[in-house]
Amino acid sequence: MDKYDLPQNVLSPKARRATDPPIAWLLRMPIDDPEIISLAAGFVDQQSLPAKEMADCARELLGGDENKASLQYGATPGFLPLREEVCRMLEKQGAGKNISPEEIMLTGGSQQLLHLITDVLISEGDIVLVEDPTYFVYMGTLQAAGARVMGVALDEKGIIPESLEEKLRSLQSSGALEKLKLVYLMTYFQNPTGTSLTWERKERVYEILSTYCDLGRRTFVIEDAAYKELRFEGEDIPYLKSLDTQNRAVALVGSFSKSFSPGLRVAFSWLPPQLLHHALRQKGNEDFGSSNFCQHLMHRAITAGRYSQHAEMLRVRYREKRDLMLRCISESFPSEVHALKPLGGMYVWATLPDGVDAGCDSRLFKEALSRKVLYVPGEFCYCPEPGVEKPTNNLRISFGMVTEENIADGVARLGEAVRYVLS
Amino acid sequence: MDKYDLPQNVLSPKARRATDPPIAWLLRMPIDDPEIISLAAGFVDQQSLPAKEMADCARELLGGDENKASLQYGATPGFLPLREEVCRMLEKQGAGKNISPEEIMLTGGSQQLLHLITDVLISEGDIVLVEDPTYFVYMGTLQAAGARVMGVALDEKGIIPESLEEKLRSLQSSGALEKLKLVYLMTYFQNPTGTSLTWERKERVYEILSTYCDLGRRTFVIEDAAYKELRFEGEDIPYLKSLDTQNRAVALVGSFSKSFSPGLRVAFSWLPPQLLHHALRQKGNEDFGSSNFCQHLMHRAITAGRYSQHAEMLRVRYREKRDLMLRCISESFPSEVHALKPLGGMYVWATLPDGVDAGCDSRLFKEALSRKVLYVPGEFCYCPEPGVEKPTNNLRISFGMVTEENIADGVARLGEAVRYVLS
Repeated sequence: MDKYDLPQNVLSPKARRATDPPIAWLLRMPIDDPEIISLAAGFVDQQSLPAKEMADCARELLGGDENKASLQYGATPGFLPLREEVCRMLEKQGAGKNISPEEIMLTGGSQQLLHLITDVLISEGDIVLVEDPTYFVYMGTLQAAGARVMGVALDEKGIIPESLEEKLRSLQSSGALEKLKLVYLMTYFQNPTGTSLTWERKERVYEILSTYCDLGRRTFVIEDAAYKELRFEGEDIPYLKSLDTQNRAVALVGSFSKSFSPGLRVAFSWLPPQLLHHALRQKGNEDFGSSNFCQHLMHRAITAGRYSQHAEMLRVRYREKRDLMLRCISESFPSEVHALKPLGGMYVWATLPDGVDAGCDSRLFKEALSRKVLYVPGEFCYCPEPGVEKPTNNLRISFGMVTEENIADGVARLGEAVRYVLS
Repeated sequence: MDKYDLPQNVLSPKARRATDPPIAWLLRMPIDDPEIISLAAGFVDQQSLPAKEMADCARELLGGDENKASLQYGATPGFLPLREEVCRMLEKQGAGKNISPEEIMLTGGSQQLLHLITDVLISEGDIVLVEDPTYFVYMGTLQAAGARVMGVALDEKGIIPESLEEKLRSLQSSGALEKLKLVYLMTYFQNPTGTSLTWERKERVYEILSTYCDLGRRTFVIEDAAYKELRFEGEDIPYLKSLDTQNRAVALVGSFSKSFSPGLRVAFSWLPPQLLHHALRQKGNEDFGSSNFCQHLMHRAITAGRYSQHAEMLRVRYREKRDLMLRCISESFPSEVHALKPLGGMYVWATLPDGVDAGCDSRLFKEALSRKVLYVPGEFCYCPEPGVEKPTNNLRISFGMVTEENIADGVARLGEAVRYVLS
């Protein structure tokens, strides 16, 4: 018997449905073989992590008069002064007016918030609409929760309103609309495609959702803005959340992981009170609060101006890395490969000609691996739907963690593999 | 309509079952009225929190060669070198031999581990045995999970083997034994009574559980040792876990919250592989790892010797605070009140004469509040069982966070309230 075997009926329904993360094996590969260049990992740029800034914050925090408070237990919703800073930041960004810190919740990364909302709303068989492709880690959470996940097509302007409407209409006609609990949208530099939802589409999407769904009572929207601060080109776009003027329907999730440091695991969310109420109960039962110390540090980073300075520097840095990656792609990849140019974030989404497989069992993946370069096969990012065939000819490559040197080498190796397979 | 109202059928079964933490209102009181002395909060001693030690750790960590690694994403099970240190620590304490860091998992406080195991094993209607009284926060988690929680009596030597056997026999005869998934034991300075499970009883309890239950396949034991490091008197007792020589049946949970700093939210667990496997999947779906930065800091605190020094100092400090509290109790409380003398931890469990109510609607609670002193009514610590009447004449008072001055004042005020009610 396998030592991991437990009789299925000993496990909770959730544990029975849960699987290992789809790309864990992929992320382990470069650890086992350091010669491998990973363009797969969604980690952030290592070199620019704010060590100096954090050292200053820690010194000031722990040397100050209130030096012990950060080392004590915190509150379940998070450190109040940081929640207040989040309100100011969101107001400045036009998310809403007079936002109350009582409506803000801090979590251990935005993933925990996604999980908490899922845990609050999803019963087995409930429906969640996601962009297709979407963030695969969250799909794992949804699968374990027993959700029926349905994809809505997106293009370079984000989710396509007509596709959304069509899906809602079909749910309506089959009587399944009342099972729709969540619509999950990454509105800025989406993982994996790097696209953002335009303002015109945000208005249209919100209108459509308001028409078909009992928003804020039965169906909620998650606006995941984890990459918003990493815009290095183009005009900012207002939040979808800004359309939810009553704070009734949209759970806005943001994070300091990409724009400062993921090692702190500090994310924030602005939630409709009726949802927050239940999410806080769950958090109380799960951990009754994330690291108080990290929240104090993050608060200090913001109030001392270090956070905004750092984020500014990161935007320049990521832009340079994106430019380098795109340059290398255009030099190394055959012209039949189409790469989306992202205006922010850390991913390039590449599409091979129709019929060319980039999946993890494909020739391309093997050829890439033999040249010691890794990418995320796009197939992991499409939600599996019975009877619906999903594309297998995409690759997600990240310029986040990888060094400039390895961007050049990695893309060259990958280009070689692609040429080999296409020839 | 209340703004928190959501139709019940919109919520998941778990969210429908979840309630607000029972004593949240109680913990808020001293914030609203700073004149109130709270002997209720389970927070740690504020004055001795390791600000200097943490500042040193942060400076060394962020100034060193590897200064960026702690600010990057970590791994789901936690920072490997810290897991290795945990192995060494557990081996030194006699928990087991040749413990593999692959069997160690780090979580955001031990509460998260309790929650993860619950989420993995408990389906609605499954049975969990707990000491009665027990840790009320975990009871909230169990309630939300839909567990049927049953109490087993304990005395000053911990859970009573005969009561455990009786309970198991009755479960067996009613055919419910196969629904028993978890046995939750706080083996050191239990919250709320401060008692520890003696070695003789540990052997007997393990023998009984092995006889009645399919340990490691259907039923698991959680040994919660959160307070173990806070022993200030008496000989150490080996872990219950040391009887589980194959690492099959007992999930051992420990924490650095009480013995160092709860603000870091770093706890550890040593789990049977078949349980760890599923708990890691859940953690992957929930947050894919707790704060990497905090884990690096904790690792440095241990390897630099600061942790053990600090814990040593804390034991002296808590002993002094306990002695002061007991002295004040014997001076202020009428002799009919019985207070258990804890050999570690941070709680004193006091019992009023039969029939005298200490519940939150009692005269005593009101009299205490009018004298601006708070305690935790013991009734919150007993698991509710339909048809079973539980004691209401207990108080949990903590010498953890409260200052020496407030221990003296608080106990005096409480003693006055008790005398008033008894007279």
